[in-house]
Amino acid sequence: DINVSENTYREQLLSLAQQLQLNLSGESLAQHLDNADQLRSFRSEFLLPPSDPSDPQSPSSIYLCGHSLGAQPRTSLQYVQEEFAEWQRYGVKGHFEAKRPWVAINESLSKLCCGLFGAKEVEVVCMNSLTVNLHLMMVPFYRPTPTRHKILIEDHAFPSDHYAMSSQITYHGYDPKTSLLLAKPRQGEELLRNEDILELLEKEGDQIALVLLPGIQYYTGQLLDIATITKVAHEKGCKVGWDLAHAAGNVPLRLHDWDVDFAVWCSYKYLNSGPGGIGGLFIHEKFADDQTLHRFAGWWGHRKEDRFKMLPEFVGRPGAMGFQLSNVPVLTVVSHQASLEIFDRAGIENLRKKSYLLTAYLELMLDTMVPNHIEIITPRNPESRGAQLSVRLKLSESLSLHDLVEALNKKGVICDERHPNVVRIAPAPLYVSFQDVHRFVSLLKTLLEGAESHT
Amino acid sequence: DINVSENTYREQLLSLAQQLQLNLSGESLAQHLDNADQLRSFRSEFLLPPSDPSDPQSPSSIYLCGHSLGAQPRTSLQYVQEEFAEWQRYGVKGHFEAKRPWVAINESLSKLCCGLFGAKEVEVVCMNSLTVNLHLMMVPFYRPTPTRHKILIEDHAFPSDHYAMSSQITYHGYDPKTSLLLAKPRQGEELLRNEDILELLEKEGDQIALVLLPGIQYYTGQLLDIATITKVAHEKGCKVGWDLAHAAGNVPLRLHDWDVDFAVWCSYKYLNSGPGGIGGLFIHEKFADDQTLHRFAGWWGHRKEDRFKMLPEFVGRPGAMGFQLSNVPVLTVVSHQASLEIFDRAGIENLRKKSYLLTAYLELMLDTMVPNHIEIITPRNPESRGAQLSVRLKLSESLSLHDLVEALNKKGVICDERHPNVVRIAPAPLYVSFQDVHRFVSLLKTLLEGAESHT
Ligand SMILES: Cc1ncc(COP(=O)(O)O)c(C=O)c1O
Ligand SMILES: Cc1ncc(COP(=O)(O)O)c(C=O)c1O
Repeated sequence: DINVSENTYREQLLSLAQQLQLNLSGESLAQHLDNADQLRSFRSEFLLPPSDPSDPQSPSSIYLCGHSLGAQPRTSLQYVQEEFAEWQRYGVKGHFEAKRPWVAINESLSKLCCGLFGAKEVEVVCMNSLTVNLHLMMVPFYRPTPTRHKILIEDHAFPSDHYAMSSQITYHGYDPKTSLLLAKPRQGEELLRNEDILELLEKEGDQIALVLLPGIQYYTGQLLDIATITKVAHEKGCKVGWDLAHAAGNVPLRLHDWDVDFAVWCSYKYLNSGPGGIGGLFIHEKFADDQTLHRFAGWWGHRKEDRFKMLPEFVGRPGAMGFQLSNVPVLTVVSHQASLEIFDRAGIENLRKKSYLLTAYLELMLDTMVPNHIEIITPRNPESRGAQLSVRLKLSESLSLHDLVEALNKKGVICDERHPNVVRIAPAPLYVSFQDVHRFVSLLKTLLEGAESHT
Repeated sequence: DINVSENTYREQLLSLAQQLQLNLSGESLAQHLDNADQLRSFRSEFLLPPSDPSDPQSPSSIYLCGHSLGAQPRTSLQYVQEEFAEWQRYGVKGHFEAKRPWVAINESLSKLCCGLFGAKEVEVVCMNSLTVNLHLMMVPFYRPTPTRHKILIEDHAFPSDHYAMSSQITYHGYDPKTSLLLAKPRQGEELLRNEDILELLEKEGDQIALVLLPGIQYYTGQLLDIATITKVAHEKGCKVGWDLAHAAGNVPLRLHDWDVDFAVWCSYKYLNSGPGGIGGLFIHEKFADDQTLHRFAGWWGHRKEDRFKMLPEFVGRPGAMGFQLSNVPVLTVVSHQASLEIFDRAGIENLRKKSYLLTAYLELMLDTMVPNHIEIITPRNPESRGAQLSVRLKLSESLSLHDLVEALNKKGVICDERHPNVVRIAPAPLYVSFQDVHRFVSLLKTLLEGAESHT
């Protein structure tokens, strides 16, 4: 496992600039970093949006929204077209005779996910969507009793998680007011402190049925200490699930070793599977043959040997596959497969190495070029974040956040905005270059300083 | 509404043959029927599998598996390609700027479904898959109590339904042995009798929390009396849901008028949306604004006005849309849209008219050409079935079911087999012709008689 001290990457960048006698904020350093980047060829495997949507020939955008919707792999459409060809060629017989037989078409995806999630094959299934899978996992793992009925989430949990948790609490006859426990940043702070979460677990753990936290918080970009939180929560007898929407394909995970009970994710962010892409689910091997787990069952989770014998008695397939309900959505599966194959070749550890450096470079550029206009919300420690930096802007009255993002957009930058004054910038290492980052910060500087001189 | 007496279509065929002085079992009658078919041009909107999969130029198959996986509309791939183009063009901005903005891309599907299901727009959503939607509907509609905890299904319910029901019963602490009530055909019969179901409701209705029956039974092809069963079940205080997997796009439905509480379906059968296509769900308008319904909630079901404001308190969108959990799977949505647009142009009432005649023709051909080799399981009354006929074959020892179906297959017929001796034949009126049916029965006759002369 990678183990770096807080400032390794920043120091590396500083000493490189010094060594090459390059201006820190000049383009040459970015060029040098791109040339030295062993993963740079992966960029050409993606179809990045043109900077001018009305002109397909215009230069590629600087695409900084991988935390929301990833870019399109060149192979995705091809894979989908192949399935349409198989459908035409075989009709219903494609379930068994297609090149990738539909009947088991998501099984290769489990294999491809192992490296990304630190999971065994039996622990992973790609199916449904994130919030659906979250509910399906709460069926076995949220079984409230009068003495243990609480769910620990965080104060700024993604709304879908919040709604899911509240609705399950109500469903079981409890009240979110008393059963939903919120981990909060301290007064005046924006990030969660690991020690505060652990303290909450120490104090209230006996009443907590389920801990459901985000691997990476969607707004702040903070990466939580999944291993330690899981361990301490287990010591208190809680079940532990993780929402990995912003962690999947972003940072290496060790779900099996960390003894996580379950995790859910979506594939349309860093995993680049396309809008509304298929979801994924991890359930630990220790439950693989546990037929006593309560689950909402369906035929696709039934033991493979006799799935088509149409027997009335359900016997689950071992592991995650046993939680499948319906036959497999072929189009979204192969679109995801195309993207997972890229990760398989790049290697998540290699990507993380580049990502450390790329995000450190973004941070350094922001600190160097627009120090008085920004405040970085995301942790400064590279081990406590993934690719994304959430940046609070000090905006002058003449430039609204929306206008700023529009202006960036006109210059070919795609990034998101969160009112009133935050942008989330995710340089995904598969397709974002150091020069992209340099250009983005330069544009930001021009816009922020231009607005300032207006007031 | 269409109202025909038992033998109208058969009589129509008989008198037509007489009038034209055509041999009942000759090809000319089929040709005549095809020429008179006002929907015949729809066949060219589909990419039917070639009879020889290794030769794309070979003549089209006789595709009789629409009850399992429908044929491919010519426009489906095009629609999907358009979405890949939008993804490339706009990246994340496609949620709002794509030609069909992704953020609401399944809303036009609700509209397109209204005619098929006899539903109001607010009552329908296309999302997830059948078994997932079934579970999501049982959350509000299966709330067992010690005095009312039973679910009425049928003895040969599709396994996924059976598993779903059993698992929900167990989940709530009840026992399928006592809580799962099975409607059965009488001793020695294969079809359910409407009066028997009604009697069961009369007798046990007070203890039944939920009635969940198939609109059309997948094995026998029997169409149940949805209106009457729903009415009587309601009188006994039960909730009533329908599995419309084999009814959707096959027969016209009046879910709103019939006061059905909820229904679920898949779109990959008669609705031709492709392997693993998106599911659909109906929930009656009377629940549209009922915020007291227990549901498993997610952000996509939250009130549209503030979905992106990320508020912690869930307020459901009115109606079916309020049961959405996750953002929308764009690829499977547009593939479904392509197929629904065909239905919209053809009209389900027109399709049903053709289907009555086409299936009556299939029945007549079987009765005429291979009377001693077959027994039709499906009801003889056209009002009690859809397109499909389930046919029990009297096989000689020299020809197994599997060999027969293989031999048919070599001749370009795609139909399914159910051991030990049943084939289900679904002449879907959108793309199956009278000549297809004639050719199929002729081939069947040759094979069955050839095998017989061998023994
Ligand atoms: C009657 C019936 N119900 C349920 C299902 C399960 O469908 P799914 O795999 O889409 O959940 C099927 C699938 O063929 C079916 O025929
Ligand atoms: C952290 C987090 N959780 C859950 C979701 C909900 O995902 P879905 O719509 O795929 O269920 C998202 C979507 O962006 C997310 O960012």
